Amino acid sequence: MEGDLMLLGVWGSPFVCRVRMVLAMKGIDYVYREDDLMNKSPLLLELNPVHKKVPVLVHHGKPIAESLVIIEYIDEKWPDNPLLPVDPYDRAVARFWARYIDDKVNPAVWKALWSPPGEGREAACEEAYEMLEKLEALLKEGDKKYFGGDNIGYVDIAANFLPHWAILIGEEVTGVRILTEDRFPVLCEWAKNFTGSSIGAAHFPEKEKVVSFFKAMQATKSIPYT
Amino acid sequence: MEGDLMLLGVWGSPFVCRVRMVLAMKGIDYVYREDDLMNKSPLLLELNPVHKKVPVLVHHGKPIAESLVIIEYIDEKWPDNPLLPVDPYDRAVARFWARYIDDKVNPAVWKALWSPPGEGREAACEEAYEMLEKLEALLKEGDKKYFGGDNIGYVDIAANFLPHWAILIGEEVTGVRILTEDRFPVLCEWAKNFTGSSIGAAHFPEKEKVVSFFKAMQATKSIPYT
Repeated sequence: MEGDLMLLGVWGSPFVCRVRMVLAMKGIDYVYREDDLMNKSPLLLELNPVHKKVPVLVHHGKPIAESLVIIEYIDEKWPDNPLLPVDPYDRAVARFWARYIDDKVNPAVWKALWSPPGEGREAACEEAYEMLEKLEALLKEGDKKYFGGDNIGYVDIAANFLPHWAILIGEEVTGVRILTEDRFPVLCEWAKNFTGSSIGAAHFPEKEKVVSFFKAMQATKSIPYT
Repeated sequence: MEGDLMLLGVWGSPFVCRVRMVLAMKGIDYVYREDDLMNKSPLLLELNPVHKKVPVLVHHGKPIAESLVIIEYIDEKWPDNPLLPVDPYDRAVARFWARYIDDKVNPAVWKALWSPPGEGREAACEEAYEMLEKLEALLKEGDKKYFGGDNIGYVDIAANFLPHWAILIGEEVTGVRILTEDRFPVLCEWAKNFTGSSIGAAHFPEKEKVVSFFKAMQATKSIPYT
Protein backbone atom coordinates (compact mmCIF):
# COMPACT_ATOMS: atom_id res chain seq x y z
CA MET A 1 0.00 0.00 0.00
CA GLU A 2 2.80 2.43 0.82
CA GLY A 3 4.31 2.08 -2.67
CA ASP A 4 6.36 4.77 -4.29
CA LEU A 5 7.25 6.76 -1.23
CA MET A 6 10.46 8.79 -1.12
CA LEU A 7 11.80 11.16 1.47
CA LEU A 8 14.35 13.77 0.51
CA GLY A 9 16.31 14.97 3.51
CA VAL A 10 19.62 15.70 5.17
CA TRP A 11 20.88 13.58 8.07
CA GLY A 12 21.41 16.47 10.48
CA SER A 13 18.01 18.19 10.25
CA PRO A 14 15.53 17.90 13.12
CA PHE A 15 12.76 18.61 10.62
CA VAL A 16 13.73 15.62 8.51
CA CYS A 17 14.15 13.59 11.69
CA ARG A 18 10.54 14.39 12.61
CA VAL A 19 9.32 12.76 9.42
CA ARG A 20 11.64 9.74 9.70
CA MET A 21 10.42 9.15 13.25
CA VAL A 22 6.78 9.25 12.21
CA LEU A 23 7.33 6.96 9.22
CA ALA A 24 9.09 4.50 11.58
CA MET A 25 6.35 4.73 14.21
CA LYS A 26 3.80 3.90 11.53
CA GLY A 27 5.94 1.09 10.15
CA ILE A 28 5.93 2.59 6.65
CA ASP A 29 8.56 1.58 4.10
CA TYR A 30 10.14 4.32 2.05
CA VAL A 31 13.21 5.25 0.09
CA TYR A 32 15.42 7.83 1.76
CA ARG A 33 17.52 10.15 -0.36
CA GLU A 34 20.16 12.37 1.19
CA ASP A 35 20.49 15.89 -0.18
CA ASP A 36 23.26 18.44 0.36
CA LEU A 37 22.20 21.84 1.68
CA MET A 38 25.50 23.39 0.67
CA ASN A 39 24.86 22.25 -2.89
CA LYS A 40 21.15 21.67 -3.27
CA SER A 41 20.14 19.08 -5.84
CA PRO A 42 18.07 20.01 -8.89
CA LEU A 43 15.55 17.49 -7.53
CA LEU A 44 15.11 19.49 -4.29
CA LEU A 45 14.70 22.75 -6.21
CA GLU A 46 12.13 21.07 -8.45
CA LEU A 47 10.20 19.45 -5.61
CA ASN A 48 10.15 22.41 -3.24
CA PRO A 49 10.60 25.51 -5.41
CA VAL A 50 8.96 27.75 -2.82
CA HIS A 51 11.22 27.13 0.17
CA LYS A 52 14.00 25.02 -1.38
CA LYS A 53 14.21 23.16 1.92
CA VAL A 54 14.08 19.61 3.16
CA PRO A 55 12.21 17.50 4.12
CA VAL A 56 10.17 16.79 1.03
CA LEU A 57 8.04 13.66 0.94
CA VAL A 58 7.12 12.36 -2.50
CA HIS A 59 4.14 10.00 -2.63
CA HIS A 60 3.17 8.54 -5.99
CA GLY A 61 5.20 11.28 -7.63
CA LYS A 62 3.52 14.14 -5.77
CA PRO A 63 5.66 16.27 -3.42
CA ILE A 64 4.73 17.57 0.02
CA ALA A 65 6.93 20.02 1.92
CA GLU A 66 7.04 21.40 5.48
CA SER A 67 7.60 18.80 8.18
CA LEU A 68 4.39 19.38 10.15
CA VAL A 69 2.33 19.32 6.97
CA ILE A 70 4.03 16.10 5.93
CA ILE A 71 3.34 14.53 9.31
CA GLU A 72 -0.35 15.39 9.19
CA TYR A 73 -0.48 13.92 5.69
CA ILE A 74 1.12 10.68 6.87
CA ASP A 75 -1.26 10.52 9.82
CA GLU A 76 -4.27 10.96 7.54
CA LYS A 77 -3.07 8.57 4.85
CA TRP A 78 -1.94 5.83 7.26
CA PRO A 79 -4.40 6.27 10.11
CA ASP A 80 -3.34 3.25 12.18
CA ASN A 81 -1.46 4.22 15.36
CA PRO A 82 -2.70 7.80 15.13
CA LEU A 83 -0.08 10.36 16.00
CA LEU A 84 -2.40 13.30 16.48
CA PRO A 85 -5.08 12.90 19.15
CA VAL A 86 -8.39 11.61 17.82
CA ASP A 87 -10.61 14.15 19.61
CA PRO A 88 -10.93 17.42 17.63
CA TYR A 89 -10.29 19.60 20.68
CA ASP A 90 -7.19 17.65 21.64
CA ARG A 91 -6.02 17.83 18.03
CA ALA A 92 -6.43 21.61 18.09
CA VAL A 93 -4.42 21.83 21.30
CA ALA A 94 -1.66 19.65 19.82
CA ARG A 95 -1.55 21.79 16.67
CA PHE A 96 -1.40 24.93 18.80
CA TRP A 97 1.66 23.67 20.67
CA ALA A 98 3.40 22.33 17.59
CA ARG A 99 3.03 25.72 15.99
CA TYR A 100 4.23 27.40 19.18
CA ILE A 101 7.35 25.25 19.09
CA ASP A 102 8.06 26.13 15.47
CA ASP A 103 7.26 29.83 15.76
CA LYS A 104 8.53 30.64 19.24
CA VAL A 105 10.47 27.96 21.09
CA ASN A 106 12.90 26.74 18.44
CA PRO A 107 13.86 30.18 17.10
CA ALA A 108 14.41 31.50 20.66
CA VAL A 109 16.44 28.46 21.75
CA TRP A 110 18.49 28.53 18.54
CA LYS A 111 19.23 32.23 18.97
CA ALA A 112 20.26 31.71 22.60
CA LEU A 113 22.48 28.74 21.75
CA TRP A 114 24.49 30.78 19.28
CA SER A 115 24.38 34.11 21.10
CA PRO A 116 27.71 35.82 21.80
CA PRO A 117 28.84 36.04 25.44
CA GLY A 118 27.72 39.11 27.36
CA GLU A 119 24.47 40.96 27.66
CA GLY A 120 23.15 39.70 24.35
CA ARG A 121 23.45 36.15 25.55
CA GLU A 122 21.73 36.90 28.81
CA ALA A 123 18.75 38.48 27.06
CA ALA A 124 18.56 35.68 24.50
CA CYS A 125 18.66 33.04 27.23
CA GLU A 126 15.96 34.82 29.20
CA GLU A 127 13.74 34.79 26.14
CA ALA A 128 14.39 31.09 25.55
CA TYR A 129 13.65 30.33 29.21
CA GLU A 130 10.36 32.15 28.97
CA MET A 131 9.31 30.03 25.98
CA LEU A 132 10.53 26.79 27.52
CA GLU A 133 8.78 27.48 30.82
CA LYS A 134 5.46 27.19 28.99
CA LEU A 135 6.45 23.75 27.71
CA GLU A 136 7.71 22.75 31.16
CA ALA A 137 4.36 23.77 32.65
CA LEU A 138 2.41 21.96 29.93
CA LEU A 139 4.29 18.73 30.46
CA LYS A 140 4.01 19.02 34.22
CA GLU A 141 0.29 19.63 33.96
CA GLY A 142 -0.19 16.63 31.66
CA ASP A 143 1.70 14.54 34.23
CA LYS A 144 2.64 11.91 31.66
CA LYS A 145 5.87 10.65 30.22
CA TYR A 146 5.33 12.54 26.97
CA PHE A 147 3.36 15.51 25.71
CA GLY A 148 1.28 12.94 23.86
CA GLY A 149 0.59 10.91 27.01
CA ASP A 150 2.25 7.56 27.69
CA ASN A 151 3.59 7.45 24.16
CA ILE A 152 5.41 9.81 21.86
CA GLY A 153 2.88 11.97 20.01
CA TYR A 154 2.65 14.90 17.62
CA VAL A 155 3.91 17.55 20.06
CA ASP A 156 6.86 15.40 21.12
CA ILE A 157 7.82 14.94 17.50
CA ALA A 158 7.44 18.68 16.88
CA ALA A 159 9.71 19.34 19.89
CA ASN A 160 12.44 16.91 18.79
CA PHE A 161 15.04 19.67 18.43
CA LEU A 162 15.17 20.10 22.20
CA PRO A 163 16.18 16.71 23.62
CA HIS A 164 18.97 16.13 21.12
CA TRP A 165 20.25 19.12 19.16
CA ALA A 166 19.62 21.84 21.74
CA ILE A 167 21.33 19.84 24.48
CA LEU A 168 24.25 18.71 22.30
CA ILE A 169 24.94 22.15 20.84
CA GLY A 170 24.68 23.77 24.28
CA GLU A 171 26.82 21.26 26.09
CA GLU A 172 29.39 20.33 23.49
CA VAL A 173 29.63 23.17 21.01
CA THR A 174 28.77 26.63 22.31
CA GLY A 175 28.65 26.12 26.07
CA VAL A 176 25.25 27.79 26.34
CA ARG A 177 23.39 25.34 28.57
CA ILE A 178 19.71 26.15 28.43
CA LEU A 179 17.88 22.94 29.26
CA THR A 180 19.31 22.35 32.71
CA GLU A 181 17.89 20.01 35.36
CA ASP A 182 17.58 22.73 37.98
CA ARG A 183 15.55 25.00 35.76
CA PHE A 184 13.63 22.46 33.68
CA PRO A 185 13.42 19.18 35.61
CA VAL A 186 10.33 17.94 33.81
CA LEU A 187 11.63 18.73 30.32
CA CYS A 188 14.97 17.13 31.17
CA GLU A 189 13.25 13.94 32.30
CA TRP A 190 11.20 14.01 29.11
CA ALA A 191 14.37 14.52 27.04
CA LYS A 192 15.93 11.44 28.63
CA ASN A 193 12.82 9.39 27.98
CA PHE A 194 12.67 10.56 24.38
CA THR A 195 16.33 9.99 23.53
CA GLY A 196 16.24 6.66 25.37
CA SER A 197 13.10 5.43 23.58
CA SER A 198 13.45 3.00 20.71
CA ILE A 199 12.34 5.69 18.24
CA GLY A 200 14.77 8.22 19.70
CA ALA A 201 17.67 5.79 19.79
CA ALA A 202 17.06 4.73 16.21
CA HIS A 203 16.46 8.12 14.64
CA PHE A 204 18.25 10.93 16.41
CA PRO A 205 21.46 11.33 14.44
CA GLU A 206 24.72 10.17 16.05
CA LYS A 207 25.93 12.51 18.76
CA GLU A 208 29.53 12.68 17.55
CA LYS A 209 28.44 13.48 14.04
CA VAL A 210 26.11 16.27 15.19
CA VAL A 211 28.78 17.78 17.42
CA SER A 212 31.45 17.68 14.71
CA PHE A 213 29.07 19.19 12.21
CA PHE A 214 28.17 22.15 14.39
CA LYS A 215 31.77 22.65 15.53
CA ALA A 216 32.77 22.92 11.90
CA MET A 217 29.93 25.35 11.28
CA GLN A 218 31.01 27.37 14.30
CA ALA A 219 34.59 27.49 13.05
CA THR A 220 33.54 28.82 9.67
CA LYS A 221 30.83 31.02 11.22
CA SER A 222 28.25 29.57 8.85
CA ILE A 223 25.43 28.43 11.07
CA PRO A 224 22.77 26.71 9.00
CA TYR A 225 19.14 27.50 9.68
CA THR A 226 17.67 24.42 8.06
CA MET B 1 -25.66 21.29 18.44
CA GLU B 2 -23.42 24.36 18.28
CA GLY B 3 -24.28 25.35 21.86
CA ASP B 4 -22.01 27.42 24.04
CA LEU B 5 -19.75 28.85 21.38
CA MET B 6 -18.04 32.19 21.91
CA LEU B 7 -15.52 34.05 19.80
CA LEU B 8 -13.30 36.67 21.37
CA GLY B 9 -11.96 39.09 18.77
CA VAL B 10 -11.35 42.61 17.62
CA TRP B 11 -13.23 44.04 14.64
CA GLY B 12 -10.15 45.09 12.69
CA SER B 13 -8.17 41.86 12.75
CA PRO B 14 -7.88 39.74 9.59
CA PHE B 15 -7.20 36.74 11.83
CA VAL B 16 -10.48 37.21 13.65
CA CYS B 17 -12.17 37.85 10.30
CA ARG B 18 -10.93 34.45 9.08
CA VAL B 19 -12.80 32.73 11.88
CA ARG B 20 -15.96 34.81 11.48
CA MET B 21 -16.02 34.00 7.78
CA VAL B 22 -15.70 30.28 8.40
CA LEU B 23 -18.37 30.27 11.11
CA ALA B 24 -20.68 32.10 8.70
CA MET B 25 -19.89 29.74 5.80
CA LYS B 26 -20.80 26.81 8.05
CA GLY B 27 -23.93 28.54 9.32
CA ILE B 28 -22.83 28.21 12.94
CA ASP B 29 -24.39 30.39 15.63
CA TYR B 30 -22.04 31.93 18.18
CA VAL B 31 -21.65 34.79 20.58
CA TYR B 32 -19.12 37.39 19.51
CA ARG B 33 -17.28 39.39 22.11
CA GLU B 34 -15.15 42.38 21.20
CA ASP B 35 -11.86 42.82 23.03
CA ASP B 36 -9.55 45.82 23.12
CA LEU B 37 -5.94 45.22 22.12
CA MET B 38 -4.84 48.49 23.70
CA ASN B 39 -6.29 47.33 26.98
CA LYS B 40 -6.57 43.56 26.86
CA SER B 41 -9.33 42.04 28.95
CA PRO B 42 -8.57 39.69 31.85
CA LEU B 43 -10.65 37.16 29.90
CA LEU B 44 -8.27 37.28 26.92
CA LEU B 45 -5.23 36.90 29.16
CA GLU B 46 -6.90 33.95 30.85
CA LEU B 47 -8.01 32.26 27.64
CA ASN B 48 -4.78 32.74 25.68
CA PRO B 49 -2.02 33.18 28.25
CA VAL B 50 0.64 32.04 25.79
CA HIS B 51 0.17 34.59 23.03
CA LYS B 52 -2.35 37.01 24.59
CA LYS B 53 -3.84 37.47 21.15
CA VAL B 54 -7.20 37.21 19.44
CA PRO B 55 -9.00 35.30 18.03
CA VAL B 56 -9.86 32.83 20.75
CA LEU B 57 -12.77 30.46 20.20
CA VAL B 58 -14.34 29.02 23.32
CA HIS B 59 -16.41 25.88 22.82
CA HIS B 60 -18.15 24.36 25.83
CA GLY B 61 -15.83 26.39 28.04
CA LYS B 62 -12.63 25.19 26.37
CA PRO B 63 -10.47 27.77 24.56
CA ILE B 64 -8.68 27.39 21.22
CA ALA B 65 -6.25 30.00 19.93
CA GLU B 66 -4.51 30.68 16.60
CA SER B 67 -6.80 31.35 13.68
CA LEU B 68 -5.71 28.48 11.43
CA VAL B 69 -5.93 26.02 14.32
CA ILE B 70 -9.40 27.32 15.14
CA ILE B 71 -10.48 26.94 11.53
CA GLU B 72 -9.30 23.34 11.33
CA TYR B 73 -11.15 22.66 14.58
CA ILE B 74 -14.36 24.14 13.20
CA ASP B 75 -13.95 22.14 9.99
CA GLU B 76 -13.50 18.91 11.95
CA LYS B 77 -16.27 19.56 14.44
CA TRP B 78 -18.81 20.76 11.85
CA PRO B 79 -17.82 18.72 8.81
CA ASP B 80 -20.66 19.79 6.50
CA ASN B 81 -19.53 22.12 3.70
CA PRO B 82 -15.89 21.16 4.25
CA LEU B 83 -13.51 24.07 4.01
CA LEU B 84 -10.32 22.05 3.64
CA PRO B 85 -10.18 19.72 0.65
CA VAL B 86 -11.29 16.17 1.42
CA ASP B 87 -8.37 14.40 -0.26
CA PRO B 88 -5.32 14.10 2.05
CA TYR B 89 -2.89 15.27 -0.61
CA ASP B 90 -4.99 18.32 -1.44
CA ARG B 91 -5.33 19.02 2.27
CA ALA B 92 -1.56 18.95 2.65
CA VAL B 93 -1.17 21.35 -0.26
CA ALA B 94 -3.76 23.72 1.25
CA ARG B 95 -2.00 23.61 4.63
CA PHE B 96 1.32 24.27 2.94
CA TRP B 97 0.00 27.43 1.29
CA ALA B 98 -1.85 28.67 4.36
CA ARG B 99 1.35 28.37 6.32
CA TYR B 100 3.27 30.09 3.53
CA ILE B 101 0.84 32.99 3.69
CA ASP B 102 1.24 33.32 7.46
CA ASP B 103 5.00 32.85 7.55
CA LYS B 104 6.09 34.61 4.38
CA VAL B 105 3.47 36.55 2.44
CA ASN B 106 1.72 38.52 5.17
CA PRO B 107 4.88 39.58 7.03
CA ALA B 108 6.55 40.67 3.77
CA VAL B 109 3.48 42.59 2.54
CA TRP B 110 2.98 44.22 5.95
CA LYS B 111 6.62 45.29 6.06
CA ALA B 112 6.44 46.74 2.57
CA LEU B 113 3.18 48.58 3.27
CA TRP B 114 4.73 50.41 6.21
CA SER B 115 8.24 50.80 4.82
CA PRO B 116 9.68 54.32 4.71
CA PRO B 117 10.23 55.90 1.28
CA GLY B 118 13.59 55.29 -0.36
CA GLU B 119 15.76 52.28 -0.78
CA GLY B 120 14.25 50.44 2.17
CA ARG B 121 10.84 50.61 0.57
CA GLU B 122 12.13 49.38 -2.74
CA ALA B 123 13.77 46.34 -1.16
CA ALA B 124 10.72 45.61 0.99
CA CYS B 125 8.42 45.83 -2.03
CA GLU B 126 10.68 43.55 -4.05
CA GLU B 127 10.48 40.96 -1.31
CA ALA B 128 6.71 41.24 -1.11
CA TYR B 129 6.45 40.92 -4.90
CA GLU B 130 8.52 37.77 -4.81
CA MET B 131 6.19 36.18 -2.26
CA LEU B 132 3.05 37.32 -4.04
CA GLU B 133 4.29 36.06 -7.40
CA LYS B 134 4.10 32.53 -6.03
CA LEU B 135 0.46 33.06 -5.08
CA GLU B 136 -0.26 34.66 -8.46
CA ALA B 137 1.25 31.60 -10.19
CA LEU B 138 -0.68 29.20 -7.97
CA LEU B 139 -3.99 30.87 -8.67
CA LYS B 140 -3.23 31.08 -12.39
CA GLU B 141 -2.31 27.41 -12.48
CA GLY B 142 -5.49 26.42 -10.62
CA ASP B 143 -7.43 28.44 -13.22
CA LYS B 144 -10.43 28.84 -10.93
CA LYS B 145 -12.15 31.76 -9.28
CA TYR B 146 -10.60 30.97 -5.90
CA PHE B 147 -7.61 29.08 -4.51
CA GLY B 148 -10.19 26.61 -3.24
CA GLY B 149 -11.78 26.14 -6.68
CA ASP B 150 -15.15 27.59 -7.59
CA ASN B 151 -15.80 28.48 -3.97
CA ILE B 152 -13.90 30.18 -1.19
CA GLY B 153 -11.74 27.62 0.61
CA TYR B 154 -9.10 27.33 3.31
CA VAL B 155 -6.31 29.09 1.38
CA ASP B 156 -8.60 31.97 0.40
CA ILE B 157 -9.57 32.43 4.01
CA ALA B 158 -5.92 32.29 5.06
CA ALA B 159 -5.12 34.95 2.44
CA ASN B 160 -7.90 37.31 3.52
CA PHE B 161 -5.47 40.07 4.52
CA LEU B 162 -4.60 40.70 0.88
CA PRO B 163 -7.89 41.60 -0.83
CA HIS B 164 -9.03 44.01 1.87
CA TRP B 165 -6.42 45.27 4.35
CA ALA B 166 -3.37 45.19 2.08
CA ILE B 167 -5.18 47.05 -0.69
CA LEU B 168 -6.83 49.59 1.66
CA ILE B 169 -3.66 50.36 3.61
CA GLY B 170 -1.64 50.65 0.41
CA GLU B 171 -4.14 52.80 -1.46
CA GLU B 172 -5.58 54.95 1.28
CA VAL B 173 -3.08 55.11 4.11
CA THR B 174 0.58 54.68 3.18
CA GLY B 175 0.50 55.00 -0.60
CA VAL B 176 2.52 51.81 -1.05
CA ARG B 177 0.54 50.05 -3.78
CA ILE B 178 1.66 46.46 -3.96
CA LEU B 179 -1.23 44.50 -5.39
CA THR B 180 -1.56 46.31 -8.71
CA GLU B 181 -3.41 45.03 -11.77
CA ASP B 182 -0.40 45.26 -14.06
CA ARG B 183 1.78 43.16 -11.81
CA PHE B 184 -0.80 40.80 -10.31
CA PRO B 185 -3.80 40.59 -12.65
CA VAL B 186 -4.96 37.19 -11.39
CA LEU B 187 -4.69 38.11 -7.70
CA CYS B 188 -6.50 41.38 -8.36
CA GLU B 189 -9.36 39.57 -10.08
CA TRP B 190 -9.46 37.14 -7.15
CA ALA B 191 -9.50 40.06 -4.68
CA LYS B 192 -12.50 41.55 -6.48
CA ASN B 193 -14.32 38.24 -6.45
CA PHE B 194 -13.56 37.73 -2.76
CA THR B 195 -14.57 41.20 -1.58
CA GLY B 196 -17.64 41.07 -3.81
CA SER B 197 -18.76 37.65 -2.56
CA SER B 198 -21.54 37.43 0.00
CA ILE B 199 -19.05 36.24 2.64
CA GLY B 200 -16.61 39.03 1.82
CA ALA B 201 -19.28 41.72 1.74
CA ALA B 202 -20.69 40.58 5.07
CA HIS B 203 -17.47 40.07 6.97
CA PHE B 204 -14.65 42.28 5.78
CA PRO B 205 -14.79 45.26 8.15
CA GLU B 206 -16.05 48.57 6.79
CA LYS B 207 -13.54 50.29 4.55
CA GLU B 208 -13.85 53.71 6.16
CA LYS B 209 -13.36 52.27 9.62
CA VAL B 210 -10.25 50.34 8.57
CA VAL B 211 -8.75 53.38 6.85
CA SER B 212 -9.44 55.69 9.83
CA PHE B 213 -7.99 53.14 12.22
CA PHE B 214 -4.73 52.75 10.34
CA LYS B 215 -4.45 56.49 9.67
CA ALA B 216 -4.70 57.07 13.40
CA MET B 217 -2.09 54.37 14.02
CA GLN B 218 0.14 55.96 11.41
CA ALA B 219 -0.22 59.38 13.05
CA THR B 220 0.82 58.01 16.43
CA LYS B 221 3.42 55.71 14.87
CA SER B 222 1.98 52.75 16.73
CA ILE B 223 1.35 50.15 14.08
CA PRO B 224 -0.29 47.11 15.62
CA TYR B 225 0.95 43.69 14.64
CA THR B 226 -2.14 41.77 15.68
